Amino acid sequence: MIEKELLAVARGDRPADRLFRNARLVDVLAGEIREAHVAVARGRIAGFGARDAREEIDLEGRYLAPGLIDAHVHIESSLVVPSQFARAVVPRGVTTVITDPHEIANVLGLPGIRFMLRDGAGVPLEIFANASSCVPASPLETSGASLDAEDLRSLLDEPRILGLAEVMSFPAVVAGDDGVLAKLEAFTGRIVDGHCPGLSGPALDAYVAAGIGSDHECIRLEEAREKLRRGMTVFLREATNARNLEELLPLVDERSERRLCLCTDDRTPADLMDEGSIDHLLRKSLAAGVDPVIAFRLATLNPAEYFRLPDRGAVAPGRRADLVTFSDLRDPRIEEVYLAGSLVAEGGDPLFSVSPETDETVRGTVEVDPETLDLSLPARGEGGRIRVIGIVPDQILTEELHLSPTVEDGEIVADPDRDLLRIAVVERHRGSGRVGRGMVRGFGLRRGAVAGTVAHDHHNLIVIGADEESMRTANRAVVETGGGLSVARDGEILARLPLPVAGLMSDRPVEEVRREMDRLLSAVRDLGSSLRDPFMAMSFLGLEVIPSLKITDRGLVDADRFEIVPLRVGASS
Amino acid sequence: MIEKELLAVARGDRPADRLFRNARLVDVLAGEIREAHVAVARGRIAGFGARDAREEIDLEGRYLAPGLIDAHVHIESSLVVPSQFARAVVPRGVTTVITDPHEIANVLGLPGIRFMLRDGAGVPLEIFANASSCVPASPLETSGASLDAEDLRSLLDEPRILGLAEVMSFPAVVAGDDGVLAKLEAFTGRIVDGHCPGLSGPALDAYVAAGIGSDHECIRLEEAREKLRRGMTVFLREATNARNLEELLPLVDERSERRLCLCTDDRTPADLMDEGSIDHLLRKSLAAGVDPVIAFRLATLNPAEYFRLPDRGAVAPGRRADLVTFSDLRDPRIEEVYLAGSLVAEGGDPLFSVSPETDETVRGTVEVDPETLDLSLPARGEGGRIRVIGIVPDQILTEELHLSPTVEDGEIVADPDRDLLRIAVVERHRGSGRVGRGMVRGFGLRRGAVAGTVAHDHHNLIVIGADEESMRTANRAVVETGGGLSVARDGEILARLPLPVAGLMSDRPVEEVRREMDRLLSAVRDLGSSLRDPFMAMSFLGLEVIPSLKITDRGLVDADRFEIVPLRVGASS
Repeated sequence: MIEKELLAVARGDRPADRLFRNARLVDVLAGEIREAHVAVARGRIAGFGARDAREEIDLEGRYLAPGLIDAHVHIESSLVVPSQFARAVVPRGVTTVITDPHEIANVLGLPGIRFMLRDGAGVPLEIFANASSCVPASPLETSGASLDAEDLRSLLDEPRILGLAEVMSFPAVVAGDDGVLAKLEAFTGRIVDGHCPGLSGPALDAYVAAGIGSDHECIRLEEAREKLRRGMTVFLREATNARNLEELLPLVDERSERRLCLCTDDRTPADLMDEGSIDHLLRKSLAAGVDPVIAFRLATLNPAEYFRLPDRGAVAPGRRADLVTFSDLRDPRIEEVYLAGSLVAEGGDPLFSVSPETDETVRGTVEVDPETLDLSLPARGEGGRIRVIGIVPDQILTEELHLSPTVEDGEIVADPDRDLLRIAVVERHRGSGRVGRGMVRGFGLRRGAVAGTVAHDHHNLIVIGADEESMRTANRAVVETGGGLSVARDGEILARLPLPVAGLMSDRPVEEVRREMDRLLSAVRDLGSSLRDPFMAMSFLGLEVIPSLKITDRGLVDADRFEIVPLRVGASS
Repeated sequence: MIEKELLAVARGDRPADRLFRNARLVDVLAGEIREAHVAVARGRIAGFGARDAREEIDLEGRYLAPGLIDAHVHIESSLVVPSQFARAVVPRGVTTVITDPHEIANVLGLPGIRFMLRDGAGVPLEIFANASSCVPASPLETSGASLDAEDLRSLLDEPRILGLAEVMSFPAVVAGDDGVLAKLEAFTGRIVDGHCPGLSGPALDAYVAAGIGSDHECIRLEEAREKLRRGMTVFLREATNARNLEELLPLVDERSERRLCLCTDDRTPADLMDEGSIDHLLRKSLAAGVDPVIAFRLATLNPAEYFRLPDRGAVAPGRRADLVTFSDLRDPRIEEVYLAGSLVAEGGDPLFSVSPETDETVRGTVEVDPETLDLSLPARGEGGRIRVIGIVPDQILTEELHLSPTVEDGEIVADPDRDLLRIAVVERHRGSGRVGRGMVRGFGLRRGAVAGTVAHDHHNLIVIGADEESMRTANRAVVETGGGLSVARDGEILARLPLPVAGLMSDRPVEEVRREMDRLLSAVRDLGSSLRDPFMAMSFLGLEVIPSLKITDRGLVDADRFEIVPLRVGASS
């Protein structure tokens, strides 16, 4: 729909709604910083140059840039619902995000994806989603839902669904598996995002030839360069648990930059509040010496072009007036944020409130009776070694350790002196009571237990503890609130964060969630863990598509051979 | 449709159809020249690196680049039908063109557009079209067809129609005219090409705000820069009659290049054969010092991205194997051309023949009885001055001259000594016998006449002569062949080029057409004209949307005020 009113303002027949005078414009189109007056009408850029306006804002030489775009983010990792997430990132200058709602999709399926769109619809943040391609992540887990090609196809008509989200099952794509190809074909002509850590050579050729357009899993410079040469758009990521930006920034130059974007993937409330969102990646890029116009392109024009959103990503007539202001080009701290021409954040604070409507369809997703769970780990016979998950600090991959268990009264028990803890994953979607049990090293608890319903990607109830009573208490703390995170010792709940929305998110403000998270972290540190974020570390111990030894409700998973393995080395499963 | 066979070749499980060994690859994606082996299967790029193949081609260090793309071309200007045009441009390395069929659309309407797609469908050149937006160019002419928004909408389902072709009625767009906005809205979400010579400031803001994405009419550097800053993709043009490339090349740098493309717009058979097509523009850019990778981007990746053709424009897995080879990076002369992996041209020659099917639906479009035409120009009363079209050499704009006519026996007559010639435009689509009459200076004929059914954009029969008998003979020569170009003196036809397809195109090879065109040019020079191409000059004297004084079948047109004006200065029309 062409706005005749906008044309009238553009050609000068009507006053603009707002005129930004004396801006230093970050012109990502022509590739320059230039002085400009920018007129806005009907939420769009009307044109350049001084003209009549109902309101004038003299920027006095401050910078004006297009709103920032996050090319790939799992909103669920902020632990708050999309509307609350908006209050956290919009003041950072983020005006558009492309989200993959695959955490909630693993719990609730299509209704979960639709909830994310619905909850985000009314807030001043442009939220687009890609359809989650890998639900469940594998058959070696029990998720709350399963999405096949037909299910995904039903999302094609949703105006906020752009394409297919990260196709993590890259071995299946490379092998030409029918199931995953059917999903890709359902999205022919749409955006298809990739996820292929370390993929290289002919396998990468096949993955790209299948039509996959991007990757955000590069950790090495040469890996990113190879993907770029094959035509992938490479998203440079700086997540809480995967900090790849610095390593990859040497890739950014005037020749290569057009096919590079920035993304946050997964960021905790604390990182969002202390560091920021895409604005943080932008500053980090600038600090590393990236040219300012190019750095802004990575966060504006490039993702807009990749995602075929020609109405944004630059300041030009007809495009959305999604704008940010700041004073220091080398260290931009976002001052005002405009969405479709309206001021929505100022000085780091949102100027809007939200009212998440989290009805029963997204609550009550934790079907666990903590009292009747069988967490026991009987020591069947004498001798022999067991498989133990070895945590690698700040990595989501693990090691497979073979150790002798500590046995008491016929039970394999935690032994904090050896940094050996019990771990269990409890199926929580269908009330089956199924429990996968194992042992973990590297978590560092001296006593007590931690539990949570955030466990990638199946999001079953995961619990780690030094004794069974603490584990039961931690489980109970989580189940009582319909999901969440908890820390317990013996019969006492030391701290908890309710995440009643799908067991993944809170509907409260991110500041509150962050305070409770801090209390949780403090409590778990008091119990002896020295990991930077034990909850995040725990949440990835269930992700069986990442090497080497993981655990799901179905038991221990050898993620390299991709099969369930027994606790005891040498036993048959 | 994902080709499982392609994936199998990509991952190395099956041999490739063809392997190009030891290429120096123009990698427009990563922005570098690099050594590579390139495997092709099923017409697509399978991957990089040495691997089994049914056929190996050792390039021995020669260059391999993506096939060239012409972002905007009126095929009709080559005077041959699309299939013959393919034989002319494919050996030049052009593998994809985006054409605006607005010449034939003005003669035949939608069936004309569909003929162009049909005739081009079977040949090894990827021909896409945009729907012609301005048919007729104005109400001050009689065209053979008129296309409104509904007509254009009927083209949306044609797989080879990308979007809306150059919206030449820029004043109507700027003013918010309902008719043109309806056309733009019919193509919401599609490509919309522009045409806005000299448009600037608020008017340009309005034109861009209406959703128009490109312009190929820039003649000055600052004009192009302003359009780039507003978000337009700028096509750098080097047409036969509009040579803008050299002036605009300083715009091309690493910051700006991504939104620049090359286009030929209108090229005569002689220019296509002697200079070339996009390959000529590429060499000219390189000669002016443009970096090779960037020059190739202008002709490959950039138009592919602008026109949203992600399956081409670069050499990468899954993309079409449209490839060219050459030996000198600074002066590329295309050696082999591959379309979808098949060799289709070699050493400047096409390796395919064509059989244009030009049935009756596109022939017999010249409804004129040359014998009964009233070409007379009675001198009504004594004295007074008349309006005379003043030709400006090598420009399509004209001057309005006010001169005293030469009168004999009560008739205004041509007076070669004063370089005053008779000109007439005869309506040829509906057999109305309507004739617009006037005088022209600057054409230079001493005797005889020239006629043609190529007259932008209405393509009526246009004739210029030193006497009425020669004009009648020239008309007859053209009408007899169902349209074309002719040169006559008195009762004798000196040369003619039949253009039986819509009166615009021949179905014979471009080489033959070029030879006949040379004979025509020689004949018209013998008659005294010193213009570089008198036929092209004549063909634009009927284009009333370009300043200043033009002529259509409805009479003289003041193209500045956009109205019919009388021959006599001061008379009422």
